[in-house]
Amino acid sequence: MNFRVPRGTADILPGEVEQWRYLEDKARDLCRRYHFSEVRTPIFEYTELFQRGVGETTDIVEKEMYTFSDRAGRSLTLRPEGTAPVVRAFVENKVYAQSQPTKWFYIGPMFRYERPQTGRMRQFHQFGVEVFGARDPGLDAEIIALGRDYYEEIGLTGVTAEINSVGCPVCRPVHREQLVAYLTPRREKLCRDCQARLDRNPLRVLDCKNESCREITADAPKITDFLCDDCGPHFEAVKNTLDLLGVNYRVNPRLVRGLDYYTQTSFEYVLEGMGAQAGTLGGGGRYNGLVEEIGGGDVPGIGFALGLDRILVALKDQGVQLPVGRRLDCYVVTLGDEAKKRAVSLLAELRRAGCSAERDVLDRKMKGQMKAADRERSRYVVILGEEELNRDAAVVKEMATGRQEEVRLDRLVDYIRAGSKR
Amino acid sequence: MNFRVPRGTADILPGEVEQWRYLEDKARDLCRRYHFSEVRTPIFEYTELFQRGVGETTDIVEKEMYTFSDRAGRSLTLRPEGTAPVVRAFVENKVYAQSQPTKWFYIGPMFRYERPQTGRMRQFHQFGVEVFGARDPGLDAEIIALGRDYYEEIGLTGVTAEINSVGCPVCRPVHREQLVAYLTPRREKLCRDCQARLDRNPLRVLDCKNESCREITADAPKITDFLCDDCGPHFEAVKNTLDLLGVNYRVNPRLVRGLDYYTQTSFEYVLEGMGAQAGTLGGGGRYNGLVEEIGGGDVPGIGFALGLDRILVALKDQGVQLPVGRRLDCYVVTLGDEAKKRAVSLLAELRRAGCSAERDVLDRKMKGQMKAADRERSRYVVILGEEELNRDAAVVKEMATGRQEEVRLDRLVDYIRAGSKR
Repeated sequence: MNFRVPRGTADILPGEVEQWRYLEDKARDLCRRYHFSEVRTPIFEYTELFQRGVGETTDIVEKEMYTFSDRAGRSLTLRPEGTAPVVRAFVENKVYAQSQPTKWFYIGPMFRYERPQTGRMRQFHQFGVEVFGARDPGLDAEIIALGRDYYEEIGLTGVTAEINSVGCPVCRPVHREQLVAYLTPRREKLCRDCQARLDRNPLRVLDCKNESCREITADAPKITDFLCDDCGPHFEAVKNTLDLLGVNYRVNPRLVRGLDYYTQTSFEYVLEGMGAQAGTLGGGGRYNGLVEEIGGGDVPGIGFALGLDRILVALKDQGVQLPVGRRLDCYVVTLGDEAKKRAVSLLAELRRAGCSAERDVLDRKMKGQMKAADRERSRYVVILGEEELNRDAAVVKEMATGRQEEVRLDRLVDYIRAGSKR
Repeated sequence: MNFRVPRGTADILPGEVEQWRYLEDKARDLCRRYHFSEVRTPIFEYTELFQRGVGETTDIVEKEMYTFSDRAGRSLTLRPEGTAPVVRAFVENKVYAQSQPTKWFYIGPMFRYERPQTGRMRQFHQFGVEVFGARDPGLDAEIIALGRDYYEEIGLTGVTAEINSVGCPVCRPVHREQLVAYLTPRREKLCRDCQARLDRNPLRVLDCKNESCREITADAPKITDFLCDDCGPHFEAVKNTLDLLGVNYRVNPRLVRGLDYYTQTSFEYVLEGMGAQAGTLGGGGRYNGLVEEIGGGDVPGIGFALGLDRILVALKDQGVQLPVGRRLDCYVVTLGDEAKKRAVSLLAELRRAGCSAERDVLDRKMKGQMKAADRERSRYVVILGEEELNRDAAVVKEMATGRQEEVRLDRLVDYIRAGSKR
């Protein structure tokens, strides 16, 4: 019988796992500096959360969720995104009752049943941030800058932030009416999906990837021309702060979020020079209505989610140097049973002292052990031979220089530790 | 509508998440020193893997798995344990064809549908290690010592390693026959579960928690009395190396693994002074037949899995000090619009320089901002007032000492950075 990894998922083996750790460590350090705290929610949630928090009519909820029943008959779903769970945690744990704003980030796997392709896996991984309790437009800009900083610090170039405002329950209906009036006489020229969207959620027609739909909507009424006295100045302030922060952005009036609880600022990070879908590295926006939708009070929110799988593909495309596995400090080569026994204790001492240390467990001869030390790219090789052992000493060889000297066993750990820190 | 976290799962919020990070960081550093590399497998696998790799007749496979179908009708299961997926990754990625041994570790969530109680969650978290390709009994002892080191380094006391040998396909049948001969006349006194076990898997009768079963099996034939010429000396060598490494252990002849591919060394870490089930913090053993079962060659393996949820409960029970959230380096208090604008750039500079920095986004008055700085336990407060701004300066207050002085804006970042490193 042959067992395989499930379709759309992948093992991350040593050599590659260091690249993931690098992306995660960078995200954690950046979040520390922006004063965000990590939060972890379960891998699955009750299905209703996503139906409500992502939206019944979205592709995610309609087609892409891994949903199943537990043995008590409750419907569970592997999280397809991170915002709804984090909002649920904010509400359920009554964090809104503490002083605001609340600044959280998360890093972890998400699950969507899609056709797998490069950078689009069924188990994929996101780094996301959410801020609750503040409406300041400067914060919107700061969040967009945080994402920009992340790409910059990991060495990815050519990222532009596309931004838009999707208004609010005051101004959106006015735009929606105008949009429907514009699109209705052109209905027949729209793709089949957009014809349905026109009835259910006309805003989504604007971000259809279909070329002929895009032509039709090129001159459609823009929401930014209809923003109310709250949303208009908010959007201006966001742009001004982005200028102040030197963020590379452009306004894209097609950038919409189709759900009622998304408000005002909406943005995506686009990698220049790639196709529309593959080029989107992440995105986010304000959702001043979402906390209330999930059962909390009228608490504003804003956040983003960045796709780490796509970022890793893009980094490799750009030839950015990424870390490889860590090297070994010390490989202990043994000759004879007495030496082997002594090596066991020596390894324990070295590891306790903070060094990475290894020995042969395959009964290899000296030559095989030296080869293994080389393969593991060990900085030092300690040779425990019978003669040296009789003098309570060992031969230490520095692999890079080939230099070797005899070192007394009671000085050995200090010797290796000092050398490994250089 | 009220949304709740699924039964048997929990949110990990800031304040607690730092404790998890601490446990993970300690595991990663220990593994570095023991020269293990991290590996990550998907959250779910095809169900057959666990049926084969954990065993059809185990409680896990019979009662506790989260199993569901994908939209193509393939049966998937949230991983209930980490060894079978890691073995699958070892085989599928042909890692056996590289030089051995292979030393891997993993940290991540696992899923079992059990009745939730303290330290036993449906989503729980394990730190595990696996070594493939080596039969050296010294390695078995080293693995057991690795777990001991982990508990020691995180500050947990009172942990004993219970060890046993479950033999191999040569010696186990001899013991099994003797065991069945001993138990059969006593069948009626065994609990219902054990009566079934006697037919299907008599070894499991030995680790029944039922008091009367334990009385009956107290004098049952011990597998260690039947070990063959390979397993006997192997077990002796394991114990000798444990002595050499100063590991606190005792032989427990009840410690069995019920599956055919488990061989020789078997062990558990027990927290003294707790009940049988709750006191087990982790365990592992040799599985020289498992790689072959999963479709690889005749490659030996050994590993353990430690339950991080239980460890955290035990650490708290023992009153061990655990890290709390990180403090803030600098809170920038602003007076007036010009200062607010300046604060945006100043924060960007501070963060780029490696400091954690924050400002008010709720339009609070100075007093409210000072309170917020205090609440966030900020080391410094930078006050940007109009007068100081006119002099291109700010007032910097060190919160611990109350000392404050005026600092020029172009020196501010260096000032905070230098102070934050102290």
